[in-house]
Amino acid sequence: MKAAIIGGTGYGSIELTRLIQKHPFLEIGSVVSNSQAGSNFSDIYPHLSNIIDKPLEKFDANSLCEQNDIVFLATPSGVSSNLVPQLLDNGIKCIDLSGDFRLRSAEEYELWYKHSPAEQKFIKKATYGLSEIYGEKIKTSNLIANPGCYPTAATLGLLPIAKTDYIDQKSIIIDAKSGVTGAGRSLSITSHYAEINENLKAYKLGAHQHIPEIEQVLQDEIDSPITITFTTHLVPMLRGIMCTIYVNLKENIATNEIHQLYNEFYKNHPFVRVRLLGTVPETKEVLGSNYCDIGLHVDPRTNRLTIISVIDNLVKGAAGQAIQNVNLMNGWDEQTGLADLPLYP
Amino acid sequence: MKAAIIGGTGYGSIELTRLIQKHPFLEIGSVVSNSQAGSNFSDIYPHLSNIIDKPLEKFDANSLCEQNDIVFLATPSGVSSNLVPQLLDNGIKCIDLSGDFRLRSAEEYELWYKHSPAEQKFIKKATYGLSEIYGEKIKTSNLIANPGCYPTAATLGLLPIAKTDYIDQKSIIIDAKSGVTGAGRSLSITSHYAEINENLKAYKLGAHQHIPEIEQVLQDEIDSPITITFTTHLVPMLRGIMCTIYVNLKENIATNEIHQLYNEFYKNHPFVRVRLLGTVPETKEVLGSNYCDIGLHVDPRTNRLTIISVIDNLVKGAAGQAIQNVNLMNGWDEQTGLADLPLYP
Amino acid sequence: MKAAIIGGTGYGSIELTRLIQKHPFLEIGSVVSNSQAGSNFSDIYPHLSNIIDKPLEKFDANSLCEQNDIVFLATPSGVSSNLVPQLLDNGIKCIDLSGDFRLRSAEEYELWYKHSPAEQKFIKKATYGLSEIYGEKIKTSNLIANPGCYPTAATLGLLPIAKTDYIDQKSIIIDAKSGVTGAGRSLSITSHYAEINENLKAYKLGAHQHIPEIEQVLQDEIDSPITITFTTHLVPMLRGIMCTIYVNLKENIATNEIHQLYNEFYKNHPFVRVRLLGTVPETKEVLGSNYCDIGLHVDPRTNRLTIISVIDNLVKGAAGQAIQNVNLMNGWDEQTGLADLPLYP
Amino acid sequence: MKAAIIGGTGYGSIELTRLIQKHPFLEIGSVVSNSQAGSNFSDIYPHLSNIIDKPLEKFDANSLCEQNDIVFLATPSGVSSNLVPQLLDNGIKCIDLSGDFRLRSAEEYELWYKHSPAEQKFIKKATYGLSEIYGEKIKTSNLIANPGCYPTAATLGLLPIAKTDYIDQKSIIIDAKSGVTGAGRSLSITSHYAEINENLKAYKLGAHQHIPEIEQVLQDEIDSPITITFTTHLVPMLRGIMCTIYVNLKENIATNEIHQLYNEFYKNHPFVRVRLLGTVPETKEVLGSNYCDIGLHVDPRTNRLTIISVIDNLVKGAAGQAIQNVNLMNGWDEQTGLADLPLYP
Repeated sequence: MKAAIIGGTGYGSIELTRLIQKHPFLEIGSVVSNSQAGSNFSDIYPHLSNIIDKPLEKFDANSLCEQNDIVFLATPSGVSSNLVPQLLDNGIKCIDLSGDFRLRSAEEYELWYKHSPAEQKFIKKATYGLSEIYGEKIKTSNLIANPGCYPTAATLGLLPIAKTDYIDQKSIIIDAKSGVTGAGRSLSITSHYAEINENLKAYKLGAHQHIPEIEQVLQDEIDSPITITFTTHLVPMLRGIMCTIYVNLKENIATNEIHQLYNEFYKNHPFVRVRLLGTVPETKEVLGSNYCDIGLHVDPRTNRLTIISVIDNLVKGAAGQAIQNVNLMNGWDEQTGLADLPLYP
Repeated sequence: MKAAIIGGTGYGSIELTRLIQKHPFLEIGSVVSNSQAGSNFSDIYPHLSNIIDKPLEKFDANSLCEQNDIVFLATPSGVSSNLVPQLLDNGIKCIDLSGDFRLRSAEEYELWYKHSPAEQKFIKKATYGLSEIYGEKIKTSNLIANPGCYPTAATLGLLPIAKTDYIDQKSIIIDAKSGVTGAGRSLSITSHYAEINENLKAYKLGAHQHIPEIEQVLQDEIDSPITITFTTHLVPMLRGIMCTIYVNLKENIATNEIHQLYNEFYKNHPFVRVRLLGTVPETKEVLGSNYCDIGLHVDPRTNRLTIISVIDNLVKGAAGQAIQNVNLMNGWDEQTGLADLPLYP
Repeated sequence: MKAAIIGGTGYGSIELTRLIQKHPFLEIGSVVSNSQAGSNFSDIYPHLSNIIDKPLEKFDANSLCEQNDIVFLATPSGVSSNLVPQLLDNGIKCIDLSGDFRLRSAEEYELWYKHSPAEQKFIKKATYGLSEIYGEKIKTSNLIANPGCYPTAATLGLLPIAKTDYIDQKSIIIDAKSGVTGAGRSLSITSHYAEINENLKAYKLGAHQHIPEIEQVLQDEIDSPITITFTTHLVPMLRGIMCTIYVNLKENIATNEIHQLYNEFYKNHPFVRVRLLGTVPETKEVLGSNYCDIGLHVDPRTNRLTIISVIDNLVKGAAGQAIQNVNLMNGWDEQTGLADLPLYP
Repeated sequence: MKAAIIGGTGYGSIELTRLIQKHPFLEIGSVVSNSQAGSNFSDIYPHLSNIIDKPLEKFDANSLCEQNDIVFLATPSGVSSNLVPQLLDNGIKCIDLSGDFRLRSAEEYELWYKHSPAEQKFIKKATYGLSEIYGEKIKTSNLIANPGCYPTAATLGLLPIAKTDYIDQKSIIIDAKSGVTGAGRSLSITSHYAEINENLKAYKLGAHQHIPEIEQVLQDEIDSPITITFTTHLVPMLRGIMCTIYVNLKENIATNEIHQLYNEFYKNHPFVRVRLLGTVPETKEVLGSNYCDIGLHVDPRTNRLTIISVIDNLVKGAAGQAIQNVNLMNGWDEQTGLADLPLYP
């Protein structure tokens, strides 16, 4: 099955390339980059030398759809909303890794993204691609809105407990930390090595576009409006997201009981690993892999639950989950091509 | 004035050495390291070559007190509780950078530190050395319990608002992140480069010995019992602590008003810099300096205040605050020897 | 085919585990760690949770050979010299990742390693496992002395030109730089995060045990004694080795001509990628992969050739080359299980 | 004495700011940045908050010279060649940190810098500011061409031996490694965090503009033409340069003897520290300081001398040496304002 990648020179694309290249049923058809069309892929990314030397192409919906069986869009915000309609009209399935089709409310999109949303009729066709939660819908969908990196870690960490009535739903605080690849390959002073190395910074306080995305997922599952506090930090490392999540428990519940709840919730989901009681996961322990690892701790002094959830932002937070969704869409085992161990250390 | 340093080969000592060496009124008298006595200081730390080549000494209270005017103890937990009494009896003033004299309650000390506390009569002599808050007491004290790194950042960030009745005192959550120098120079798998680089980990959930220290400071100022949630993380960088602090506001208060409150609170304290509204500090912006920088944000959606507070853990969180306290104890300007700009980048 | 790993808790073993786990014809049989026997592998390395939870075993030659078809030894220097004889006597093939069977001369071994060499009769059975050069011998060997990380990068960079008479053989200088995983998982002040991060250091000047190994390989191919200068540096990163190699050319030869020589030399060796003229490889471009990338530059001002050669020290410099050798020994395609793209960025 | 800084938002300027601010006889007069004029200095560099909040100015030679006593130019290549003439004509002394006035030969400048050189009559007025070597000339000069970072480390490492006839002058190879701050604050894919972190790369092989600068210094001292091999590498750290220098000895000379030669050569130069025999310096050991530390090793197997020389590229390689030169120009002790210990770790 041939896969096209649009947005070929960003880190999402390069990670898709790595994962497609080792997937037994997928191969790379076309790689589209309007800005670099004509160059060889391996000129821009020499680590591909001798392996993927093909030229980058300009976007052309017709020829793309003729030569490929599926399309991944790893484009900046506001781009895929224009491309996806042309592709769907050509009858090809699309996985969009940007935020363009994630929010159902056009008002919310404009409020948080500060530009125009996709057309409503296409938004309605999109399935939110959080594989563990929406697996059944994903199987029959033609357009996947692949989740954001932070929302993946945050909602997988929260959903098992959020669906119970053990917690005060107003108390949810997500303190999120990300490696720098999350900021992409576009040049910016905030990704400049000398500014970000040996530094820790918080950014976009109260204004991150992943806030409404997390709230939308929680509300879908809980069926009542939820407002969260979500703070993002940039950590001087390449890959990895950790969400440290705080929720107040309404009554005394042992960590033990919550631990069982999580184990039960994820028992059929091999990519979510609930860690042994008394331990919490580190970001390095999922590096390069599609795992989301979760640790739990209840503090009896405050009756507050702390959830630690970690992913590799480029894998489970982007390209890996996209492949997982393609596996589901094609009826393949969801671990196909994704079963490798994390790279350690 | 001659200063002795006990615990000469840890990072606290080496930072004290740097700061004493550039202080106009202090010079290094003795450097004590029982484990390395006899070696030259510069053999162990070659960056001192040609500058401080003196031999390390064994601990001897009498000769120390004869040859020095003040003593800094930068020893592991449980050591200074035995040394300080001998030194005070010799009539010399002590600044203890360990936790041995910080907690007033012997029960709390044993509970969190898991070993025996210092003698109660010496604990009573100690003044908690948070310079901005206890400056007056510090001036006349003979024994300073220099604050922990996390408590310094956390309490300076919290105190101005904690003293008001704007907040729900049960809602305090401190999500703290530290560079790796905070773990000291003792070999450990958790400080092993290959394990910690490109990694983010949470540790000691609900069990960090700085929890009762922070609570004690808050309770002193607020006059009612307080229980906080405090989570620590290790960030792959050398220096720097950030506390991201969350508190629920009881009523609607604008960021603006809280900003004025903080500015007023710290107007006579040059080492605390309240940042412009709309901005938050990064750890690199205080590197190598004694500043504690604070940023504020109120989220109107949740009516929750987020406080970002950063320090260099080895300076304001240890050696720098120790020098600041010595300045206060001697009636010198508190910025003496501490006025250098942060090292950037 | 079942593979045993001896020395189960070092980084060589953990990388072998990753590569075996994704190899289509290999699976992990036993993991031996005398110091940690009884613990689960995933207790020590939580990134293996839910995937490889098996207990670590004590070394027992008989049971190992019964339950496995091949043995990898990733033990510290001086250990496998005692274990390999027992294993060979049991009729099982061994790949030794340590230096114990690499040097043919017992005197040289003692001189550089400072302890006793393996028995001469077993050293004679060993084939030096530099896959691209000794592939034919490897195919029929029962004992592989898997090359050191530095010698792999250095000799693959040097051999094509060293075999010609274009160069002054006395002029060879190898300035080598390595990431910190090369120093292993044993605790040491030189692998302590705070000492090695944001630092660059040279070490073991003129005394590195890889010097005689490199000279032995060069001499074998050139048939005359060679003495090199080889300097190693520790770079604050996890993985990657770069050798910057300098040789004086005896006559004027264009980079172009040398480039063709290298391309010809490696045309049937997919893991060595000679880079386009005018470009040189970076260590990140081979991260996590079995590639050795080589760049070439002739400076007409000095008539000196500079060769840049990079590998991932844990893959082509250790576990990857071990797998490549097993592929050769079994008549499998040498890329089996090793064809994944580098992890970038 | 008031100092102006031109090029106010680069890392050279920000390091000058730090050093001037702690210098007892200097204070910051004007900070010029044409691109950011009007902004406050602390808006762009918040670590200056509350300390240096002054607005950035446009360049105006007259007003600059009225309000200041000395001018530092930390501008990109090709800028100061136009500004310095205006400033000298106004009678003010200039320290140029760029390469514009370093090379005496206009042809060489054009060849290596690929643009037009400064006017010859101004180049003739310039003194090359390698403080330890040209101290006497510097004292009476009005225009200092402050040395490049690499040439400082390379020539201080080489000069004592290069001036003897112990070495084969054709054999000089300098393998240089630098932290990323050397690449400045301009955005570039080669300074993009995700590309440079966990990576080691060689760059500008045979084409670095510091080659003719190093050769010029060596030739001045040796009085015969010299051609060197010089290779630069980018190391994933902020600050620090190491030059690993290889030279062939013409006869057998003990390390001991060379060590004495170096000690003698630098005995009156406190910023050059020749390390104890058997040890070599690490870059972290000079961090934030003006020291150049040198280690020596003779390999009796090859009769080759290896010299390891380290500096902080922003201090002894730029701003610190500029201050050292100002000290010399004013008859102050050359250590004035520069005596602080390195920041460790």
